[in-house]
Formats: sequence, structure tokens, C-alpha cells
Amino acid sequence: MEPRGFTHSDVSALVDTSSGAILDVRHEFPVLEQEGLVYLDSGATAQKPAAVIEAMDAFMRHENASVHRGVYPLAVESTERFETARARAAGWLRAPARGTIFTKNATEAINLVAYAWGLDNVGAGDTIVVTEMEHHSNVVSWQILAQRVGARVEYVRVDGDGRLDLETLDALLAREPKLVAVAHVSNVLGTINPVADIVARAKAAGAVTVIDGAQAVPQIPVDVGAIDADFYAWTAHKVYGPTGLGILHGRPALLERMSPFIGGGHMISLVSDQESTWAEIPAKFEAGTSPIIEAVGMGAAVEWLQGIGMDRVRAHELDLVAYTLDRLSEIPGLTLHGPREPEARGAVVSFALDYAHPHDVAEIVARRGVCVRAGHHCAQPLMRCLGVGATTRASFAVHNDRADVDELVAALHDVHEVFG
Amino acid sequence: MEPRGFTHSDVSALVDTSSGAILDVRHEFPVLEQEGLVYLDSGATAQKPAAVIEAMDAFMRHENASVHRGVYPLAVESTERFETARARAAGWLRAPARGTIFTKNATEAINLVAYAWGLDNVGAGDTIVVTEMEHHSNVVSWQILAQRVGARVEYVRVDGDGRLDLETLDALLAREPKLVAVAHVSNVLGTINPVADIVARAKAAGAVTVIDGAQAVPQIPVDVGAIDADFYAWTAHKVYGPTGLGILHGRPALLERMSPFIGGGHMISLVSDQESTWAEIPAKFEAGTSPIIEAVGMGAAVEWLQGIGMDRVRAHELDLVAYTLDRLSEIPGLTLHGPREPEARGAVVSFALDYAHPHDVAEIVARRGVCVRAGHHCAQPLMRCLGVGATTRASFAVHNDRADVDELVAALHDVHEVFG
Repeated sequence: MEPRGFTHSDVSALVDTSSGAILDVRHEFPVLEQEGLVYLDSGATAQKPAAVIEAMDAFMRHENASVHRGVYPLAVESTERFETARARAAGWLRAPARGTIFTKNATEAINLVAYAWGLDNVGAGDTIVVTEMEHHSNVVSWQILAQRVGARVEYVRVDGDGRLDLETLDALLAREPKLVAVAHVSNVLGTINPVADIVARAKAAGAVTVIDGAQAVPQIPVDVGAIDADFYAWTAHKVYGPTGLGILHGRPALLERMSPFIGGGHMISLVSDQESTWAEIPAKFEAGTSPIIEAVGMGAAVEWLQGIGMDRVRAHELDLVAYTLDRLSEIPGLTLHGPREPEARGAVVSFALDYAHPHDVAEIVARRGVCVRAGHHCAQPLMRCLGVGATTRASFAVHNDRADVDELVAALHDVHEVFG
Repeated sequence: MEPRGFTHSDVSALVDTSSGAILDVRHEFPVLEQEGLVYLDSGATAQKPAAVIEAMDAFMRHENASVHRGVYPLAVESTERFETARARAAGWLRAPARGTIFTKNATEAINLVAYAWGLDNVGAGDTIVVTEMEHHSNVVSWQILAQRVGARVEYVRVDGDGRLDLETLDALLAREPKLVAVAHVSNVLGTINPVADIVARAKAAGAVTVIDGAQAVPQIPVDVGAIDADFYAWTAHKVYGPTGLGILHGRPALLERMSPFIGGGHMISLVSDQESTWAEIPAKFEAGTSPIIEAVGMGAAVEWLQGIGMDRVRAHELDLVAYTLDRLSEIPGLTLHGPREPEARGAVVSFALDYAHPHDVAEIVARRGVCVRAGHHCAQPLMRCLGVGATTRASFAVHNDRADVDELVAALHDVHEVFG
């Protein structure tokens, strides 16, 4: 199979490279004070601005207490900080706070749906629809459910331009699947999927919808209310917040009808010997001590992003992606994966070199301080679809600028010298 | 029903109050610089020493990257820090690092066993044994499993001195339960349960064993290897580390045979369209981005505790508990719950006042800056057993001293003045 992708000659005409950087926030990231560090792996995890680090530090130094249970001032303050973070996250994405559940990461957010909704509502012979471009979090979770109940996972195809083939979606919807789960932005191709349209089609077919927003929320303005999926998952550590905290926005009426997932403290109303009754949402899905310090950090990250404005984040990163697509045209034997129009992408650029394995590419560019990711990017079905075992991926953040792209390009010239 | 417990006259003869504080680490806790703060709620969540706050801060400022996937130096360093934290936690408790799984909290650690082991191994008509003194995390998790598969949860009784009645355990073991789940230290009574003995009896009866060590690990020296349970769960935020990280030590051979729990990235080997193969343990149980910053914080907390020595932690807190039991004898109408011998307890003291509801007690003592917890402490079955709806609980940490206990006692005199 011929590797799927496109080459530089297809793209360079599309890019206006005259504009400079739109944002200047690099100095707000302490880790970037390291000389020569060109961090192009924000799609894996984002670096943290001082505002986030300081918020977590200050919380631990001045306010730390368990939430929802204590009557002393420290506990009351902590609870208020925790719930304010929830409300801020929900308000940012126009989702109801009551349906905004804190998990440990986006993966657990999706698995919560697979277990708590899936075990009760998906049965033998049922169909679950995902796409060929999903991250493993949005594939393996459904496979595990499917194997437990005897259902089948079917895949919406990805076309040669790295976009979903919506005809194959419609064909699968004709089978009346129980659930449709789709990434908002591909973590490999960068493709921004038309999730509102997909959700509308899936709903018309009677399916419950799950959107994996892990890449989208840090990269583009997201309106969860307008997308109107039953579930929308994302994670704090990719939006400049800490690890240890994922977010699931669920439709409140559906969450209320669902069985709980993790059983324990705080998610109950009354515990009898053989059975219990559940707390109101979102508590019903938040057993045990919550990621309190992490919620405070996430709240600071969202506040910081709100201060910038997601429209400006998007404009800044779109400029970088366009510039990158253009500059990569210099590199001999380079194939780009994903949509050729920068506007169709988030802040992710994956590519292949004819003469070098992605792991070798990542190692060579690391010698110049350039941090890129090489591998299957937790998307093995997509790798098979692209006809490759791995790709090299550069992903961008608000702190990157064109000089970072220039360093990447210079480093890729090194790779060409070594392997080309 | 008469509330169960004991009064001051039973205990005061047991205590030698001549010794002073053993540890002097209060100044290492920034939050305690607040004037008049008497934090007696470490059983809910511990305060963080500067060493932990600074380790997390420094990691985010200098090293932060995703782990296990990148080849650039920042990712290699982060991976090493992350795995060093795992090895440190495992080594501290003499558990194998390979069987040491990072979860989001102790509750998820227990639920991991309920789902990944339980759904495959517990069936209709089977028995799951817990105790009347369990935290809801070690009750509701099993109720949810039992309801899914048609099993039944049975309870080892608690005697009038707040200890497990092991005759009722033996009677339940005669029914050949599939699983026995017991707290190492009660979060309400403080009772230190003879878990090695219980595990040995349960194993002889063919049951898998789960120990909830959430209260034990911060309070007493714990040797997971010697206890020899199949699973032992605890959490970072109660051992002076951050929220967002629980730990499950599992027997590696059993973990290897088990189905996975959360499906997603990192926990797979090969993802095909309909099924996947799993990564080696512990990765098999760690889908998605791990609590990386939290693992670094936990590692710093464990290192800090190792510097003190858990024998000294125990001696310090035992002295405080003995002193507390003695001083509480001054308070009219006070009933203590749990074992009367300080040596039989962890660092937890729950009590009732004849004339004041626990919530009122907590509010009144908070006026003097004393932070105690009032409520059912996520242990409703135990509350029924004690014949109360709630208790007031003081729980201790390494930074507490006798002056803190004196403040509690003075505040309880206030309560007596108001309500007595």
C-alpha cells in the first residue's frame, strides 16, 4: 500500500507567510527559559505558564483542605475554589456545570461513558461507531465494552486528504448504532472534524454521541453547547493545566438516568448493607477525594486562556501551522499527512521522510533541542490506514513562534544530511 | 440502641503524659504559618510540606513532559522521575514496583479490582466479605459489582471496643467468599486491624484479599510484602503528597491474568479493529496520560517521610493520641469511639458529646481555628453499628503537637459552655 499523504508542492501556494507572531507569551513559561529548547510536543502535554504553577503552589501553601465535607474556613475556601474551577471550565465551553464531571484524564472520561452508560445500554449484536482516526482512548474503551457485551466496533473511513468520509458514517448510521464516538481534532492528522454535523446525523439515527475534545479544547474555540453531543471529554494537562484531571461534560438528564461508575465516598446519598442510593450529579460520578489541587490549576489555566482569548490562540497557531506546511516544502522526500489547507487543521503537523524512520528523525532533531513526537501516537488504526507504522509529529502551542518552526526545519535538514 | 463507645474513666490510667513532642516539623508546612490554625483533619487530607510543594513546582518549571513516549531529553528525564517515584513508593512499602499501579485515588484503586478482577471472577450467588467499619470506598465498590453480577456483600461485625469480631469473619469464610476486603486502619475508630492474620485466614478459605491502606500508610509502618494481600490500596494526598494520585499494589501474577480496566493509550500492545492486546503490567492498568506531576509530588512526600522514619511518625502520633484520650476525659458527657488502648489505634480519635451534634461541635471549635471533621465520615454502616448518625473526628499528623490537643480541649470546653 502506498503511504497516504501529500507533498510540499500541493500546499505552498496556500500560505501567506508575511505576518509575524500574533501572541508573545513565551516569557510566561518558566520551562522555556532553558536555552535552546524548542518544544513542539504540546499535543502530548502542554507546558505550564507561571500563572498555573503559582496558583497550585499558593493553594497548597495557604488553602489546602478536603472539599465538600468540612465546616472550618479552610475547607469552605477549598470547596469554593474547587467549584469555581468547575464553573469556570463549564462556562468557558458553554456547558452546564452540573453535567461537568472531574475524572483523572480524558481517557477515564470516555471510559466512564463506556462503563456507566455502555454496560446498561449496549448489548449483543449492537454496533458502536468510531472513526479510523481515533486515539486509542476512543477505540480501546469501546472494544473492551464490546467484548464484554458482544457488540461490534465499526469505523468511519478516513479519505486521502485525512478527512472523515461522511458517506461511510451514513452507511454505518443506517445500522442504527447505539453510540457514535468521534475526535473533535485528530491528534495525528490535525483534522478538525465537523462534529456538530456528525452529532446531528448520529442523533437522527438514535445514537448516543461522544466527542473526544482532548486536542480541540487547547487549539480552537469550542462551544460544547452548540455541538450538542451527549458527552464531550477533554483534559487539563493539554490546556496548560496540570496532569491528573480530565473533564467530562455530559447531558445532565442522561447522567441522571445512568448507573454510577466508580463507587465510594461522596457519590452516595444513603449506604445500606446491600445497596445504596446515589448523590446528585456531578457528585454521583466523583467518588473519593477529587483532584482538588489539579482543579485549582486547571481553573487558573482556563482563566489564563480566557485572558488571551481562544480566537487569538487559534489565529496564532493557524499562522504557525500554515508557516510550517510552507517551510516543510524545503525538505526533500517529505510527505505530509492530513488536510493540506491549514484552516482544516488544529495545531498539529505529522509527516514522513522517505529516507528516515520517525524515531531517528525525533532523535536527530532533539540534538538541536527540538522536541517532537515519533511513533503511532496511540492511533494504530490510523497508522494502518495511512500505510505507515509511525509518523513524526510537531504540535504547537501559544508560546511557539516562527523561529521554533525555523529550528525544526534546520533540524530536518540535518536529518536529510545524515540519512538522505 | 445505646450508643457504643467508652468514657474517660476507662482510659486515663493507660496514658503516660510525661513525654513531649517527638517530632518538630511544623515549620516545614507553609499552611501552618497562618496564625491560630490547628489542623486536626489530616485523616481527610494531609497538609503539604515545602519539600513536596517545591518538588512539584520545580518539575513544572524545569522538566515537565509526557512520559514513556518521547525521545527528547525533557521526556526522558520526566519518565525517569515518574518511574523513580513508583520505585520509591514500592520500595518504601516493600511491594514490587511492577505490581504498583498509579490510579487517581484509593477509591479508584479499589474499584479497579472490583471491575477488572470482579466482573470476571464474581458471579451470581457469590459472597463478598467486607467489615462494618469500612469506608464507603470499600463498600459501595463491592455493592456495585454485586448488583451487576448477582452476588451478596456480607459484613464482619465490629465489637463494643471498636475491633473486628474475627469469629464473624471465620463464620463468613466458611461460606467460601470470592473476596475479602478490609481497612488496615479505620478512618473513624482508628482501629488498627490485624490484616496479616485476616489475609492468612481469607487465603486459607480461597478468597482474594483487598486491603484499604488509605489511613494506615501515613500513620503506621506498613510492610505490604509481609501482609501478603492480593491488593493493597492507598493514596498520595494523605501521605503529605498531592491529590490526583492513588496507588494500588497488586500481586503481579494476578494482575497479569486480569482483564484490563480503563482502555486507552499506553495500556495496549497492538490495537486491531475489533480487539487489542495489552501492554505488560503496570502499563496495562495505566491508560491515558498518567498523574505525572502528582507522582513527582508523591515521590517527594515519601522521600520526606523516609527521612523522618515511619517508626518516629508512629511514636509521635501515638503520643498525641494517648494524650488526647487522656485530655478528653476532662470534657463532661464525652463518649469516645474505638479502642481504648492508644496502641490499638492509628492517629484518629472520634467522639460524641451528649449535648451537642457533631456538626455544631465542629462549628464551635472552628471559631478557635480548630479544624475537625463532623459527619458520617463516609462510613454509614459503621454509624449504624455505633448507634449514631455522625461523630466528631480529630485526626493527627506529624506536624501536630500537644498544644494542638490543648486547643481542641479548650474549644470543647467552649462547646460545653454553649450546649452543656
